Amino acid sequence: MKKVVLAGAGPGNIKLVSIGTLEAVKNADCILYDALIPMELLKYKKDGAKLISVGKRAGHHSMKQDEINELIYKSSLEYDYVLRLKGGDPFVFGRGGEEYIYLKEKGITPEVLPGISSSTSAPLLSNIPVTHRGIATSFTVITGHEMAKTTMNFKALAELNGTIVILMGIGNTEIITKNLIQNGKDKKTPLAFIEKASTPEQRVTLTTLENAAKIKAEKEIKTPGIIVIGDVCRVLTDL
Amino acid sequence: MKKVVLAGAGPGNIKLVSIGTLEAVKNADCILYDALIPMELLKYKKDGAKLISVGKRAGHHSMKQDEINELIYKSSLEYDYVLRLKGGDPFVFGRGGEEYIYLKEKGITPEVLPGISSSTSAPLLSNIPVTHRGIATSFTVITGHEMAKTTMNFKALAELNGTIVILMGIGNTEIITKNLIQNGKDKKTPLAFIEKASTPEQRVTLTTLENAAKIKAEKEIKTPGIIVIGDVCRVLTDL
Repeated sequence: MKKVVLAGAGPGNIKLVSIGTLEAVKNADCILYDALIPMELLKYKKDGAKLISVGKRAGHHSMKQDEINELIYKSSLEYDYVLRLKGGDPFVFGRGGEEYIYLKEKGITPEVLPGISSSTSAPLLSNIPVTHRGIATSFTVITGHEMAKTTMNFKALAELNGTIVILMGIGNTEIITKNLIQNGKDKKTPLAFIEKASTPEQRVTLTTLENAAKIKAEKEIKTPGIIVIGDVCRVLTDL
Repeated sequence: MKKVVLAGAGPGNIKLVSIGTLEAVKNADCILYDALIPMELLKYKKDGAKLISVGKRAGHHSMKQDEINELIYKSSLEYDYVLRLKGGDPFVFGRGGEEYIYLKEKGITPEVLPGISSSTSAPLLSNIPVTHRGIATSFTVITGHEMAKTTMNFKALAELNGTIVILMGIGNTEIITKNLIQNGKDKKTPLAFIEKASTPEQRVTLTTLENAAKIKAEKEIKTPGIIVIGDVCRVLTDL
């Protein structure tokens, strides 16, 4: 019986990989993995298992999504147990849904295994609770790519008044912060940049909505990273 | 050296516990655990480790948050390594931030370990990707308790047009759906109830915003569970 599993590997630290995903790594005959997974995880593969890097990073698309879809499918013809190992969670901006549909159309129903998403774990590891009683009772997760588009409803986002978590948004810091301020978000709202969350190189930079673009340039803040906007950024760090 | 760890144990299935949280269970001298953690996880505790249930469930608050805070602190005076084990992720509606602050004020800086939150994993395990290219480019997570209050900005939430994930909201299904429709959300928008995600008793019920309250009564849908609202509910299940 052929088996294809789409699994999340968490934000980057091997301790944040689930027991189920680790088990899948140990049992798979072929592993197609992203650039942002904890690489030491691959040491647990079984002898002879095939490893294929399909890594994508902002600005360095090493393989198009169509090619990845096709490669997972082709691997499933060759191997009994194929594992598609993705950074974070496969269904949180992970395009896992597209891989799922492609395989399903080819007659294969993949299993899915969640992972710890950087959208909540990167804030946590920076001592930022995305929700906190009396401070924020909701959070919205969005990509920076999307927020740079004119179709983005910045007004609704500003008015919702919850925590905003932006993945892949560091490159568009100026557009994002300008639009939120123009749509009524307080310019003094705390903003945190979190680079390389959960890894030894993790760096957290705390600023405000109005100063974010300047600080980003001064501190040379780079992808991969996330942006958190809201009073929760200071609720634990100001103690 | 005293050690207190606030760790997430994921949505309920032991396979969704992280390697780091499992390690903490194995090493802790005292474990204070919630009602919704995977109970078999406790079998990995070391010999002689103290287990304390501080479980809370909707409608059955066995211990108040203040009492839990105090109990963690008191345990830290008695044991070298105290683990506070929480369902899901400690900082996603987990009140982990409050426990953090309480301990910090007592002079103890807890370590925090993220968990897989039910807010993203319950949809995934029901074949619902919270984001999907061309369907939803953001998701907002909120509690049902909060949404039942008049302070909730239903208008902004409806206009944001992303996926809505509601934790602890099954009891307020009618208020939530009525308010979203009144604020312009299409009444035909797909809605999924997900009960007991990741456990053998998981049940997914797919309906629409306008029919949700009726279906909830008919199918006797109960807590613990989450509600997902958006076109993503059908993107993989309609294949």
